[in-house]
Amino acid sequence: MRTTIKDIAAKTNLSVTTVSLVLNNKPSKISSKTKRLVLETAKELHYRPNQLAVSLIKKRSKTIGLIVSDIRNSFFSCLAKGIEDECRRKGWTVILCNTNDMHERELACINVLAGKSVDGIVYCMSRDTGPQEFEQSYQLLRSWNLPVVMLDRFYEGRDLAVVKVDHVTGGFLATNHLLELGHRRIACITGPCHLTDSSDRLKGYQKALDAWSIPYDPNLVVEGNYDMPSGSEGIEKLGAIDYSAVFAFNDLMAYGVYQGLKRRARAIPSAVSVVGYDDIFTSEILDVPLTTIRQPIHQAGTTAATKLISIIEGEPGAQNTQTFLPELIVRESTAPYRAPV
Amino acid sequence: MRTTIKDIAAKTNLSVTTVSLVLNNKPSKISSKTKRLVLETAKELHYRPNQLAVSLIKKRSKTIGLIVSDIRNSFFSCLAKGIEDECRRKGWTVILCNTNDMHERELACINVLAGKSVDGIVYCMSRDTGPQEFEQSYQLLRSWNLPVVMLDRFYEGRDLAVVKVDHVTGGFLATNHLLELGHRRIACITGPCHLTDSSDRLKGYQKALDAWSIPYDPNLVVEGNYDMPSGSEGIEKLGAIDYSAVFAFNDLMAYGVYQGLKRRARAIPSAVSVVGYDDIFTSEILDVPLTTIRQPIHQAGTTAATKLISIIEGEPGAQNTQTFLPELIVRESTAPYRAPV
Repeated sequence: MRTTIKDIAAKTNLSVTTVSLVLNNKPSKISSKTKRLVLETAKELHYRPNQLAVSLIKKRSKTIGLIVSDIRNSFFSCLAKGIEDECRRKGWTVILCNTNDMHERELACINVLAGKSVDGIVYCMSRDTGPQEFEQSYQLLRSWNLPVVMLDRFYEGRDLAVVKVDHVTGGFLATNHLLELGHRRIACITGPCHLTDSSDRLKGYQKALDAWSIPYDPNLVVEGNYDMPSGSEGIEKLGAIDYSAVFAFNDLMAYGVYQGLKRRARAIPSAVSVVGYDDIFTSEILDVPLTTIRQPIHQAGTTAATKLISIIEGEPGAQNTQTFLPELIVRESTAPYRAPV
Repeated sequence: MRTTIKDIAAKTNLSVTTVSLVLNNKPSKISSKTKRLVLETAKELHYRPNQLAVSLIKKRSKTIGLIVSDIRNSFFSCLAKGIEDECRRKGWTVILCNTNDMHERELACINVLAGKSVDGIVYCMSRDTGPQEFEQSYQLLRSWNLPVVMLDRFYEGRDLAVVKVDHVTGGFLATNHLLELGHRRIACITGPCHLTDSSDRLKGYQKALDAWSIPYDPNLVVEGNYDMPSGSEGIEKLGAIDYSAVFAFNDLMAYGVYQGLKRRARAIPSAVSVVGYDDIFTSEILDVPLTTIRQPIHQAGTTAATKLISIIEGEPGAQNTQTFLPELIVRESTAPYRAPV
């Protein structure tokens, strides 16, 4: 059974009041010898204050909720690791919720976390949360009066703190790298169009084309859904159209692109160069290691946790947007353009 | 601000007592019309009972702790997904803790979770928890009187519920597959020797050799640590010794084996066959898709959650061991033995 103040009182032959005064560090005339006895006995019996009671009194649970699409996706597990690392350092804990990328479950997660009296939520929108669905989630979060940090996926124009990666720059870096290698017909397999993280990458793609005065060809752009199969489906959709490079908006879809190109017997990188996005750990160990855009995911996670705790603790200035810059990691899946023989 | 019973009373012009009686479904003479008004207003104002207060009264938080090595490892993120799926279905939540495979942090995690008043813990031992360290963790869990389900890694002889995979069978299946292909010199890269999950796989390896009357050669067995680099280090350690197949005790080390063999210009599977263990999702998309042993990880996770909740709720018979059988997944990294030319 859990050790209570009564157990310590019984063991030390002191009154419950005395033990309580010592353990709660209240001013009293209790001798330092008695204090030491109480503290040592408490330690010996593994006494810990009942955190539920402490939370009720302090109206703080020192627990945050984390809403992600699916923890099995290494992007989210890496975020979760960053968040948990930082929370632990500060004496906080994390309740994990998966939405399976469904907006309905996102709403359910918010309600569950509110019911668990979390002090705030780090919120990664589910994939099918469009602007209208986001409005619902936003209103629900507001009705619970829950501090929130949005991570990676977000919509503009709301008074929510945001930790994000500059995906316009990411899209630019990927495309510019291919342009520098001489590629001019660069296919794109995007994420879902309504998500900022995808539309921003596309903006970066267009920005790079503009910088090189290459016209934008919508036939080269195919919508994917960030899952691996949509990468190979993207290659099918592109069909016989002329392209010498593919920019997949995440590494998982790039793996699908590998499979799709293999089926068409187009070698990487001699026939087609491929760039991914995320730099998940397996991208390095593929037979043709993947050139990709690395996001500082773990650091974004720790920053989101720091920011959320600051907001909960009422620190001024925390309710803002923090942006991380991604970087280009060049490996073996990209090579200079060679005209087909 | 959070809606309280007072807010509902103010809005409905009813007394706090009346509202409380209705919301707590206590017997009373309140009319059904008034009841409906209270319930509708509660819904409208997003009223939820304060779970902390409910937990204090019921002495149950409906929250469990999950201790894993590192959520970024897809084995653990898949377990976590199974556990969270099942908990959500039952209205429970999960607090996530990473030990980074350090026993000291494992002890800290147990204390943190106990402090958060979780009702029980799903506990995956850290890699450096040997029998003595396990005894410490066990005593700490007992001192908190916390129900526990050990998942995957465990030591025998304690009254703890266990959900495990039969790794003797897993090791047997992997080795037997290679023997059937005609391989006789089969190298092994094991996990840390003190872990049951590794020593069981080795027992399975030996059992298969015995069944084929092949003598066990300790020179073919190298200890790894389940990280990718220890796979390529294993190949270095094996050096020039004669072998035509490698059984790596997890997929990550098998990826390291791929790299090590590539450096030695030994092709997979024509020169060396490779079998992994785990079937993490990337094993299918490697250029030479990996033959491996699939563990029913997600199902082990849901089962661990079910079992823990049963124990917490005092259901008889839950405090036992449940074993899952792994299966052999044959892909392209294994081929019939061919004598070197």
